[in-house]
Amino acid sequence: MSDPQISRRAQIDSFVAMDVMAEANRRDAAGEEVIHMEIGQPASPAPEKARAAVRQALDSGAHGYTDAPGLPELRQRIARYYAERHAVDVAPERIIVTTGSSAGFSLAFLMLFDHGAALGLPQPGYPCYRHIASALGLRPVAVEAGPVEHWMPTPRALEEAAGRVDGLNGLIVASPANPTGTMLGPSDMANLIDYCRSQGMWFISDEIYHGLEHTIEAQTALRFSDDAIVINSLSKYYCMTGWRIGWMVVPERLIRTAERLQQNLYICAPTLSQIAATAAFDATEELDQIKAGYARNREHLLSVLGDAGFGELAPADGAFYIYADVSHLTNDSRDFAARALSEAGVAITPGIDFDPEGGHRYVRLSYAGNLADMQKGAAKLGGWIGSLRA
Amino acid sequence: MSDPQISRRAQIDSFVAMDVMAEANRRDAAGEEVIHMEIGQPASPAPEKARAAVRQALDSGAHGYTDAPGLPELRQRIARYYAERHAVDVAPERIIVTTGSSAGFSLAFLMLFDHGAALGLPQPGYPCYRHIASALGLRPVAVEAGPVEHWMPTPRALEEAAGRVDGLNGLIVASPANPTGTMLGPSDMANLIDYCRSQGMWFISDEIYHGLEHTIEAQTALRFSDDAIVINSLSKYYCMTGWRIGWMVVPERLIRTAERLQQNLYICAPTLSQIAATAAFDATEELDQIKAGYARNREHLLSVLGDAGFGELAPADGAFYIYADVSHLTNDSRDFAARALSEAGVAITPGIDFDPEGGHRYVRLSYAGNLADMQKGAAKLGGWIGSLRA
Repeated sequence: MSDPQISRRAQIDSFVAMDVMAEANRRDAAGEEVIHMEIGQPASPAPEKARAAVRQALDSGAHGYTDAPGLPELRQRIARYYAERHAVDVAPERIIVTTGSSAGFSLAFLMLFDHGAALGLPQPGYPCYRHIASALGLRPVAVEAGPVEHWMPTPRALEEAAGRVDGLNGLIVASPANPTGTMLGPSDMANLIDYCRSQGMWFISDEIYHGLEHTIEAQTALRFSDDAIVINSLSKYYCMTGWRIGWMVVPERLIRTAERLQQNLYICAPTLSQIAATAAFDATEELDQIKAGYARNREHLLSVLGDAGFGELAPADGAFYIYADVSHLTNDSRDFAARALSEAGVAITPGIDFDPEGGHRYVRLSYAGNLADMQKGAAKLGGWIGSLRA
Repeated sequence: MSDPQISRRAQIDSFVAMDVMAEANRRDAAGEEVIHMEIGQPASPAPEKARAAVRQALDSGAHGYTDAPGLPELRQRIARYYAERHAVDVAPERIIVTTGSSAGFSLAFLMLFDHGAALGLPQPGYPCYRHIASALGLRPVAVEAGPVEHWMPTPRALEEAAGRVDGLNGLIVASPANPTGTMLGPSDMANLIDYCRSQGMWFISDEIYHGLEHTIEAQTALRFSDDAIVINSLSKYYCMTGWRIGWMVVPERLIRTAERLQQNLYICAPTLSQIAATAAFDATEELDQIKAGYARNREHLLSVLGDAGFGELAPADGAFYIYADVSHLTNDSRDFAARALSEAGVAITPGIDFDPEGGHRYVRLSYAGNLADMQKGAAKLGGWIGSLRA
């Protein structure tokens, strides 16, 4: 009998940003100087209030499993966040605390879509949408969201995508978006939600970059629909990437389904991270200072990247990313990023991670680090690009 | 257009032990006295060395994402555990740190099996095997492991199960087992592995209860096969349930596949939990004392449950469970457990969680709590069963 085989569905692409980070970490460990602009990860630790809550918890209690949907006090705190921040009324029962937004995506995809369903994904977009969808048996369908569409999906692009596959079962969209930082205004979001409703499609709103807006205000889909699925996380604005903590908001009729899936697939989100998260919602003063640092990084990069040799930059309205055209320098962004790391000592992510079709002409720079590193990174990249052209 | 529908694959059963815990927690919160014997969760916190490592980490560093397969020092420490504890050589590269064993199951099922594959599951067994498998599009196939088979799958029972479905693609087995605590001897495990190899089937060994043996020594499947998938966790022996931290060992040829899936579906396991886990491996002195407490609980329960009115008990060789026949008292273990909670104030888990066919005649008692609670729980159950018969 022959050896059993690896499944076909596991043959997904890698999350290239993580591959770049792993290589950058190897170089760090070997003593090389590496500027990290590859991964969407704040340089700051979790807010002090969150860490203080964990210190206190470590001295008392056993930190066992929580109820599958999460600690009641955290679910209540998140409901209060919606009331205060967005003036939207969300019952705590609709909030499921998840192991980062990653768990939110898996839970949502399993809950909403059967094997073979077609899920619309903005292109460029977060690569794990596509890969998780494939691994879970969905058909990921690219929805054009390039410069022509102002980097956001539109009802027209959705219609075009739906036509290619005989109808879509759902759409996932992020505003602010990854990798571009672009955002939807309120009427654009309402139009997308209306379109999905008219087609009987699920609308999933990835709101992980909320709190990190630089130009206009981010909208929660819950303002426009009780039937939208919202996925959020403490990783970005709250600086808690490694804590693996996030949440989803589900319509009333999905509460028990979400709870059952969570019980079986995750049991619960990490308990100490839930305790830390509860406290983090009251740390906005500290966090807004960190955000002001991103704004300075953004200003700096937007002002120097052109001279450093980068082409057009997507509107960086929110998040901490700049998506830069490098088509005048390369036709192979993966090779370009690999050389930026090995030759310039700056880790950046190739656009093909976000867009298998057009991404060979782009790279993404994350400016979640500190200003000194961002300055150094831009200067090193500029010097290196200059040497390429010389 | 009608509202979009919940998926069919999300219509899995609940993890009943979690439902019982949620109800018990509600009663706790309302001020009722509840003895917790429903969930496999140590009453003790993570070992002091693990908590100390986290306290130190909280004061330094940003606790960002780790490399997807985990912190190098943790992977190395786990490799050393195999060398020291099992005299087995495992390259650190084969070790993937996971978000509890829960993530290990999802990763393994996705990695090894395509949609429609048939996975053999011992019955009774851990309910989430069955539910995760269903949600991920596998066909869960019950392999008889009742009292006639000494509560463990046998090659004969596997053959019988394979015959029912035109062949199995894999088997998952736990020793010590949940809910029975029963264990496989070395030759029994070797025979199962040989059988799977002869049939071209994957063999997944759930070793989450390793370290909690009361009669014979637990065997790692890695002693018998380089192609077995091993799933383990820090939840049980290491008292770290809420930390959501575990690991898997994969064959060489699966390393990159596992890494890609982890990058996309989980990014990485929680960073502080990884730091705590690294330290926990050096806390065996503290942990062995806790284990000695389970042994006392076990002795006590095995000596009193008969008089308390329970029927035959499965051999509790390991873990911290007693699977008790209650067929002389009920034909509906779900109702029996609900009444034990509401009438006797003791939370226990109905057998139907573990065995949809025969479990209506059994309940599972977890003795992971402290001795005083176990004594009180058994006494309360005894009094209540007495009142049922009166």
